[in-house]
Amino acid sequence: MKAAVLYEFGQPLQIEEVDVKLPKANQVLIKVVACGVCHTDLHACMGDWPVQPKLPLIPGHEAIGYVAAVGTGVDYLKQGDVVGAPWLHSACGHCEYCITGWETLCHDQKNGGYSVDGGYAEYVIADARYVARFPKEIDFFQMAPITCAGVTVYKGLKETDTKPGEWVAIFGVGGLGHLAVQYAKAMGLHVAAVDVAEDKLKLAKSSGADLVLNSAEQDPGTFLKSKIGGMHGALVTAVSPKAFEQSLSTLKRKGTLAMTGLPPGTFQLPIFDTVLNRHTVRGSIVGTRKDMQEAIGFALEGKVRATVKTARLEDINDIFNQMKNGTLEGRTVLQLCEP
Amino acid sequence: MKAAVLYEFGQPLQIEEVDVKLPKANQVLIKVVACGVCHTDLHACMGDWPVQPKLPLIPGHEAIGYVAAVGTGVDYLKQGDVVGAPWLHSACGHCEYCITGWETLCHDQKNGGYSVDGGYAEYVIADARYVARFPKEIDFFQMAPITCAGVTVYKGLKETDTKPGEWVAIFGVGGLGHLAVQYAKAMGLHVAAVDVAEDKLKLAKSSGADLVLNSAEQDPGTFLKSKIGGMHGALVTAVSPKAFEQSLSTLKRKGTLAMTGLPPGTFQLPIFDTVLNRHTVRGSIVGTRKDMQEAIGFALEGKVRATVKTARLEDINDIFNQMKNGTLEGRTVLQLCEP
Amino acid sequence: MKAAVLYEFGQPLQIEEVDVKLPKANQVLIKVVACGVCHTDLHACMGDWPVQPKLPLIPGHEAIGYVAAVGTGVDYLKQGDVVGAPWLHSACGHCEYCITGWETLCHDQKNGGYSVDGGYAEYVIADARYVARFPKEIDFFQMAPITCAGVTVYKGLKETDTKPGEWVAIFGVGGLGHLAVQYAKAMGLHVAAVDVAEDKLKLAKSSGADLVLNSAEQDPGTFLKSKIGGMHGALVTAVSPKAFEQSLSTLKRKGTLAMTGLPPGTFQLPIFDTVLNRHTVRGSIVGTRKDMQEAIGFALEGKVRATVKTARLEDINDIFNQMKNGTLEGRTVLQLCEP
Amino acid sequence: MKAAVLYEFGQPLQIEEVDVKLPKANQVLIKVVACGVCHTDLHACMGDWPVQPKLPLIPGHEAIGYVAAVGTGVDYLKQGDVVGAPWLHSACGHCEYCITGWETLCHDQKNGGYSVDGGYAEYVIADARYVARFPKEIDFFQMAPITCAGVTVYKGLKETDTKPGEWVAIFGVGGLGHLAVQYAKAMGLHVAAVDVAEDKLKLAKSSGADLVLNSAEQDPGTFLKSKIGGMHGALVTAVSPKAFEQSLSTLKRKGTLAMTGLPPGTFQLPIFDTVLNRHTVRGSIVGTRKDMQEAIGFALEGKVRATVKTARLEDINDIFNQMKNGTLEGRTVLQLCEP
Repeated sequence: MKAAVLYEFGQPLQIEEVDVKLPKANQVLIKVVACGVCHTDLHACMGDWPVQPKLPLIPGHEAIGYVAAVGTGVDYLKQGDVVGAPWLHSACGHCEYCITGWETLCHDQKNGGYSVDGGYAEYVIADARYVARFPKEIDFFQMAPITCAGVTVYKGLKETDTKPGEWVAIFGVGGLGHLAVQYAKAMGLHVAAVDVAEDKLKLAKSSGADLVLNSAEQDPGTFLKSKIGGMHGALVTAVSPKAFEQSLSTLKRKGTLAMTGLPPGTFQLPIFDTVLNRHTVRGSIVGTRKDMQEAIGFALEGKVRATVKTARLEDINDIFNQMKNGTLEGRTVLQLCEP
Repeated sequence: MKAAVLYEFGQPLQIEEVDVKLPKANQVLIKVVACGVCHTDLHACMGDWPVQPKLPLIPGHEAIGYVAAVGTGVDYLKQGDVVGAPWLHSACGHCEYCITGWETLCHDQKNGGYSVDGGYAEYVIADARYVARFPKEIDFFQMAPITCAGVTVYKGLKETDTKPGEWVAIFGVGGLGHLAVQYAKAMGLHVAAVDVAEDKLKLAKSSGADLVLNSAEQDPGTFLKSKIGGMHGALVTAVSPKAFEQSLSTLKRKGTLAMTGLPPGTFQLPIFDTVLNRHTVRGSIVGTRKDMQEAIGFALEGKVRATVKTARLEDINDIFNQMKNGTLEGRTVLQLCEP
Repeated sequence: MKAAVLYEFGQPLQIEEVDVKLPKANQVLIKVVACGVCHTDLHACMGDWPVQPKLPLIPGHEAIGYVAAVGTGVDYLKQGDVVGAPWLHSACGHCEYCITGWETLCHDQKNGGYSVDGGYAEYVIADARYVARFPKEIDFFQMAPITCAGVTVYKGLKETDTKPGEWVAIFGVGGLGHLAVQYAKAMGLHVAAVDVAEDKLKLAKSSGADLVLNSAEQDPGTFLKSKIGGMHGALVTAVSPKAFEQSLSTLKRKGTLAMTGLPPGTFQLPIFDTVLNRHTVRGSIVGTRKDMQEAIGFALEGKVRATVKTARLEDINDIFNQMKNGTLEGRTVLQLCEP
Repeated sequence: MKAAVLYEFGQPLQIEEVDVKLPKANQVLIKVVACGVCHTDLHACMGDWPVQPKLPLIPGHEAIGYVAAVGTGVDYLKQGDVVGAPWLHSACGHCEYCITGWETLCHDQKNGGYSVDGGYAEYVIADARYVARFPKEIDFFQMAPITCAGVTVYKGLKETDTKPGEWVAIFGVGGLGHLAVQYAKAMGLHVAAVDVAEDKLKLAKSSGADLVLNSAEQDPGTFLKSKIGGMHGALVTAVSPKAFEQSLSTLKRKGTLAMTGLPPGTFQLPIFDTVLNRHTVRGSIVGTRKDMQEAIGFALEGKVRATVKTARLEDINDIFNQMKNGTLEGRTVLQLCEP
C-alpha cells in the first residue's frame, strides 16, 4: 500500500510502498477513504512533545474508511462497515479509568499515528473495540475532523458543566472553534465567540454564535459581564496564555473554564478571585468512545458541519509547511481512495 | 455593652462601652457567649484586602450565644435559642445564587465583623434568616470555630467531589487543617495530611489521618503516587504558593484540587499536565447555610472537635500581636459571658 | 376591583367588586393584565384535593401584570415592572428545602389562588421574593401559561436527567405536552410524542417532535425500542394510569421516567424490570424560581410558544364547564386589562 | 475436578467428577478456595426466573481462589493471584453501557453459575477482564459474600444518592441487610434499620445501626418522620411488597428509594405523593467492576465483615433445603480447598 512515512523528526514524510498488515485478535484492517490532517500530526513529526512517537511512523488519527478484514474475536464488525481510527487507538480495558468510561485517562493507552501507525496510508490497523462507528452513507471528508477536532470540543463543552439556556464563551474560532460554536448551539447553549481576526468572527457568526467579539478591540471580560452578566462556561481552543487569562475574566461566579489545547508552559491562576468567585478550571483531553458517538450523532443530523478541503497524500509535506508558516486555511482532509 | 472597636486600620482595638442596638425586621439580638478569633479578623483590622471593612468596626464572625430579642417577622426563633452569627451576615435572597442555595456567591452579601458589626462584643445583631442554629446544650467554645473554620474546610472537602473510600490530601494542619482531617474521616475518606512541622503532623495523626507526610523531607507528589497511586482530591488550607503546586502534583488523573484560602497573588497552573490528566482546580469560599448545619451536625455528634483555648475580650490586642508574630498556638475563643 | 370569587366548592364563581388590598412587607400589588386558566383552578373550585383551599377564594396562579405598589423592604422591584404571580406564592425561606433552592418542597409554602387569593382579578397581591420576572415588552397572553404549564414541563424534563442528543418520550400532547415538546427541542433533545388523538399528534409534529406515535394504534414500548432502541427519558403529562405503564415500557436501560401530573390513585411499578433495567421513576412538582426564570428565558427567545386564546373574566364559569365536559380546546387566558 | 452439577430444575445437585477446562483468550482458570451460597443459586436450580440458566449447570457466583492458569492476552494477571468469579461473568465491552462503566446493564452479559458454569467446583473459568481482584492475604470465607451480597447493597446505597451525615433506612437485616448497615456506616451515613425479628434488630445494632425499629410493632414512616424528620434514602433488601410501601413512607421530601431485590410482581406507587414529595424510586442491580473494587476495599479495611459459616461442597443440597424451609441462618460459604 501507499503510505506517508516519517523516519526522522523534522524531516519530510516519505511517500512509499509499505506492506499491509493483517489484523490480529480484536483488530480490524481499514481501507482508508479519508484522513484529516491535525496539528498534532505536525507536533508528532517534529518530535515536539516530551513523550515522542515511535519511528518510523505513519501519522494520522482522523482516518475513516471501510472494514477490509477483521481479526479473531471481532464478531460485532464485518467487512464493509464504515469505521474511524481515532487518536485513542486502544486502552488497557481493566484499569480504574477504563472500567468507568474514562479510557482517555488510561495510562496504558496507545495513540493512533503516534505510538502505533495511523491513517496517512491506504490501509490502517485499528483496535475494533475503539473504532468510531458510522452508518453507510456519509460524507467521509466532512466526518474525518469530527473524530478528533469535533469530539475534542464537544467533550470540552460538556466539561464546562453548562446546560441548555446558559452562556458559554468560545475563545478561538479556528478548526476547533468553528466546530465548538456549532456543538454549543446544538446543545442548547448561548454562544459568545471571541477571536482577534474579523474573518474568524464572521465564520463564528455564520456558524450560529449569538454574539461575536474581537478581543483585540474590546476586553472580553468587561464586555461580556456588562452585556450578559458573564459566562457560565468558557472553552479555550486558542493556545495563547492571554486567551486563558481573558477567558477566566469572562466567567460569572460559579463558572467553569475548560481547556482543551496542549500548549507548553503555565497559566497564571489568580487565587483570590478563583476562591471568591468559586471558579472551576478543568483540563479536557479528546473524548471517550461515548463522547465520540455522541459527537458523530450531532454531525450526522447536520447540526455540525466541518469546513474542509481535500488534498492528496502526496501533498502532505506542503500542508505541513503551510501549517508551520500559518498560511494553511481551514481543515485539510487527505483523500486516499474513492468513497 | 462592652465591645472591642476598631477606629483606624493597623491600630489596636479599643475596649469600650457601646450602645446595644435593637433588632429590626428579620433580625435577632444575640447575647454572645463565645466568639472565635479568626485570621480574617486580623486582615480586617489591618485593612489588608481590596474591599475594606466599615469603620468604626466591631470585628468577629464566629459568635455564638442566646437570642435576647427578635425583630418583626421572626416567628421561627425565640428568646433563649442558641444561634451563631457567622461571616455571611445576610444576602439579597432573590438573585440567581440566593435562589439556588449558593448565597455565599451573592454579590449583595453583608459580612459579619466586616461590613456590619460582629461578635467581639457582649451583644451582636444578626439576620435571623442567616444564623447558625444549635440545640441548647452545647460547648460554646468548641462550637465557635466550627461556624467559620469548620464549615470552610467541610465545604472545601465537598468541593473536591471525592466520595467515601477515596483519598484526599490535606495541605496544612493548622486551625483549618486539623478540622479538615476530622471532617474528611467523618465523610468516609482516607486522609493524607501534609505539613512541614512535626507537631502539626502529630496533631494530624491524632486527628485521624491515615498517613502523614513532612513535605520538607519528602516530595508529596512522588511519595503519594508511589505509595497510594495518587489522590482523588486535595484541599489546600496552607497559604503558600508552594503548597498549591505540590498539592496538584499529588492528584491522580481526574482528581480535583480545592482551594479555600485567600492569599494574594497567582498560582502557576501547568496547562499540559492539567489537560492530559483531566485535573480540576476549584475555589471554595466559606459555606452556605446548609453546609453550616451539616458541619455543625458532625461536630454535635463528636466526630469533629476543635482544639481551642479561651481568652477575655481584653486580650484581643495581645492575641492579634501573637498572630502577627506567628506565636499563637491553636484556635482562640473569646469568652463574653458565662454559658 | 373586579374579581371572580368562589364561596362554596362546586358552585359557580361570582364576578363582583372586591376591595383592593395594600402590599405588606415583602409584598407587591400587581395590576393584572392576563391570567391563564389552569386545570388546577377547577380542582380548587371543586374542592377535589385532600387539602382544600381557603374560602372565599379568588383562584388563578398564572397572572402577569405591572407592579402597582410595593411593600416595605422591596427595593428590588418598582412600579411598572412586569411580574407574574405564580402557584408558589411564598415559602418559609429558612427550611432545608428553601436554603437549597428547592422551595417547591417547603412544607410551609403558600399557593396562589389556593391558600391565598390569586389572579382572577384586576389586582393581586404577590410575595415580591417569589414573583416571576419579565422584561417590559412581552406578549402577556403568550407568557401567562409559561409561569405554570411551561415551568412544570420544563422542570419535568430536567428531572429526566437527559442531555442534548438523547431521546425523550412525551406522553400526552395537550396544554402541557405541546409546551414540553418545544422545551425538549430547545434543550437539544430528540422527541417522540405519544397521544391517542391525531390532531394532538399533528400539534406535536408542528411543535417540533422528531417522531409521533398514536398509542391507540401501536404499542409505544415495542415501537420505540425497535425503532430507536428505547428512550433515555419519558415525561408523562397525561393523567391516565395506562400512560404511566406505557411510558415505563419505552425506557431503555438506565432511563428515567418523570411524572408531573397529580392524578389520584397508584401506579403498578414492576419490581423485577425496574431493578434489572435500573430504571428511575421520579415525581416532579412545578418548578423553583430558578426553573421559572429559565423557562421564561426560552419563551422570550421565541423557542417556546404557548397556543392560547383569550377570554374575559366573565367567561370563567363557561370555561370551567367546557373543561368539565372535555370540550375546551387549547389553553385559555383571561384578559383583565389592556397590556 | 469435583463439582456440584444440576441436570434438571428442581432436582438435587450431583456431586461428581468433571473435566477441568482450559482458559481461552482473555480467560483465567481459578482454583476455588471458597464459594458463597446465594439465594439466587437456589432460584437458578429451581428454574424460577423467566430466563432460565443453561443445563447441565454448575452453580455459584461468589467464588474466590487462586489463578491457576491464564489464557492468551491476559498479561495483567498471573498464577497465584487471588481473584473472584462474580455474577457478571462477562459483557460485550463495546455497547453504550459497557463503554460508560455500566456493564451491569449490558444486554449481552453472561452470568456466572447461570449462563456459564460457576464456582460450586474445585476449579472455575472466569473472564479475566471481569474478575474481582484481591491482595494475597485475605480471609477467603469472609470475602466471598462481599463479591455478591456486599457489592449489591453497596451499589444500592450509592444509588440512594445520600451523602455523609444523611439518614438512610435499611429494610431487612438478613444476609444483605447486615452488610448494608456496615457499608452505610462506613460511608458516613446515619442508619435506621427496620426488621420484624428482634434478633435481626440486635444484629443491626451490633453492626452499627444508629437506630433500630421493629416494623411489626411500630409504623416505620410515622416513627422515623416524627423522630428524625424522615429519611434521605431507603434501601429495601427485604422482598415483601409491604416493605416497599413502608420504605417509601419513611422518606422525607426529595428522598430516594433504591430497590435491590428481584421479587416477582408489582409495587403500588402512589402518584400524588410521589409527585408532591419529589420522591425517586430506582432499581439497582448488583454492581459494576468499580463498585466491586470499592466494596472489597471497605471489607479489606475491616469496616465491613460478613457473618458466615463454612460448609463442604457435599452439604449443598442440605443447605438448599434449609433455604427453602427458611431455617438457614446467616450466610454459608462452601470450602473447596485449604486457603
